[in-house]
Amino acid sequence: MLQNNTPYIRQVHYYETDQMGIVHHSNYVRWMEEARLAHFNQYVINYAELESMGIIIPVVGVSCSYKKTITYGDTVKMYSRISYFNGVKAVYEYTFYLEDEKKPSFIGSTKHCFLDERTRKPVNLKKRLPELYDKMMQIFKTEEETRRKL
Amino acid sequence: MLQNNTPYIRQVHYYETDQMGIVHHSNYVRWMEEARLAHFNQYVINYAELESMGIIIPVVGVSCSYKKTITYGDTVKMYSRISYFNGVKAVYEYTFYLEDEKKPSFIGSTKHCFLDERTRKPVNLKKRLPELYDKMMQIFKTEEETRRKL
Amino acid sequence: MLQNNTPYIRQVHYYETDQMGIVHHSNYVRWMEEARLAHFNQYVINYAELESMGIIIPVVGVSCSYKKTITYGDTVKMYSRISYFNGVKAVYEYTFYLEDEKKPSFIGSTKHCFLDERTRKPVNLKKRLPELYDKMMQIFKTEEETRRKL
Amino acid sequence: MLQNNTPYIRQVHYYETDQMGIVHHSNYVRWMEEARLAHFNQYVINYAELESMGIIIPVVGVSCSYKKTITYGDTVKMYSRISYFNGVKAVYEYTFYLEDEKKPSFIGSTKHCFLDERTRKPVNLKKRLPELYDKMMQIFKTEEETRRKL
Repeated sequence: MLQNNTPYIRQVHYYETDQMGIVHHSNYVRWMEEARLAHFNQYVINYAELESMGIIIPVVGVSCSYKKTITYGDTVKMYSRISYFNGVKAVYEYTFYLEDEKKPSFIGSTKHCFLDERTRKPVNLKKRLPELYDKMMQIFKTEEETRRKL
Repeated sequence: MLQNNTPYIRQVHYYETDQMGIVHHSNYVRWMEEARLAHFNQYVINYAELESMGIIIPVVGVSCSYKKTITYGDTVKMYSRISYFNGVKAVYEYTFYLEDEKKPSFIGSTKHCFLDERTRKPVNLKKRLPELYDKMMQIFKTEEETRRKL
Repeated sequence: MLQNNTPYIRQVHYYETDQMGIVHHSNYVRWMEEARLAHFNQYVINYAELESMGIIIPVVGVSCSYKKTITYGDTVKMYSRISYFNGVKAVYEYTFYLEDEKKPSFIGSTKHCFLDERTRKPVNLKKRLPELYDKMMQIFKTEEETRRKL
Repeated sequence: MLQNNTPYIRQVHYYETDQMGIVHHSNYVRWMEEARLAHFNQYVINYAELESMGIIIPVVGVSCSYKKTITYGDTVKMYSRISYFNGVKAVYEYTFYLEDEKKPSFIGSTKHCFLDERTRKPVNLKKRLPELYDKMMQIFKTEEETRRKL
């Protein structure tokens, strides 16, 4: 995967390690959430605001491929991009790198649907929040285009 | 602390360890919650039901004293008891033992207040849910009495 | 997926919920670990013992498909089975059900490799621990067979 | 508590919330670790390096006082200071503030002992790593002094 936006960077927390001496694999799912929401807050809309408008975006699928272990003391650059979006569903893809490395330590993806917070039924952003739909579609298309050119 | 009720027993999960090879200290706070809610569900009322009645019981204070390390493979017996209750506030005390040991591995306590879920303001159980108040007061007194006799 | 062994059953912990009011999706990765190690301890070998023999089994891939939300108060039946094993790598598959339901709430899988704890290089169980290899291969085959018959 | 050093600042992660809609109380114990290690890395020595020198600093006591709830979307300023140090034991104190507030949302402390990583027995930093002892003692005294003046 190629990168076309600002990474979310953070250091490993001690409590994220396990007795193998590495970051426990479940934490990468949490890191994907951190990276995705940082991306969402920066490029789309503040997620806390979106929830206050009655929309939630639960995760309906996760995929993780662990390439190299990450340990306490490491700084991780986390790239996210929207790889699919149709107003009802979205897919994000992630590539995590150790600060000075060219080969990714982790590749993952998450699938999402947009739900009404109250009814817990799917909502179409195109109808419910057309401006947000346009913005997210534009991010998606720009990221796709940049990726194709690389 | 002396025990006068059924312990909550469970095994350590691998993801609860850290790179020192022991259970990370933050997990004991989660274990106290598990033990407290098991005690609450068994002796007082099902906590999920209580929340559906509009009452929440957030934690306002925590105290932990780690005596011996606990590691993956260990089975932990967790004793809880109500050590203070006045209808508005409650304190729980906990003692955790490794299965075959007489000296505790951990001693802790948590302070709580009863809040209205919607207003987030304190509620007096004696007024709001008198039957529940009576039940909890009885548990508290019985546990105190048993403890004094020991 | 069909079940051919004893499920690992446990209740949702309060701290596993998030502000959507459901179990946070990252916890299912931890639940798969709990279910897998319960399966491993019961059918193959005690995992703590295996680590003390210098073998670790890190996760190299994870896949999650969330079908229905799980909430605090629910009891979850977690089925695990070995769906691939060749002595160097293994794949586990999982299906989680709410206690009284026939449709799964969650389907997932995890990929693993067997590593030497010290060198962190792959080991072939067939050479290093032939008895363990035979046992695990037998479990794998029995589970495959039972599954085909169903 | 008064502040005399740079705070560790970070945003709440979504996965740190619970179904009350607030940050789960157990996470503050993890935040204290983050804040303490940031303080330690900045003022004393890189903790990962210290562990590679065979010293670990487990937590032997925790105390938490939750003043105001913290929610997703909040930015938290976390102040740490060494409030006791004698070469064998240390105590850290913490005060967490929401970005624009003057009253703390949380006050806590953690007790620590210095152990040899291999033997798990106490070590006296004054003997084992005298330069580190001097540095940490100096930080402790400077922080105490600054605090008295305020």
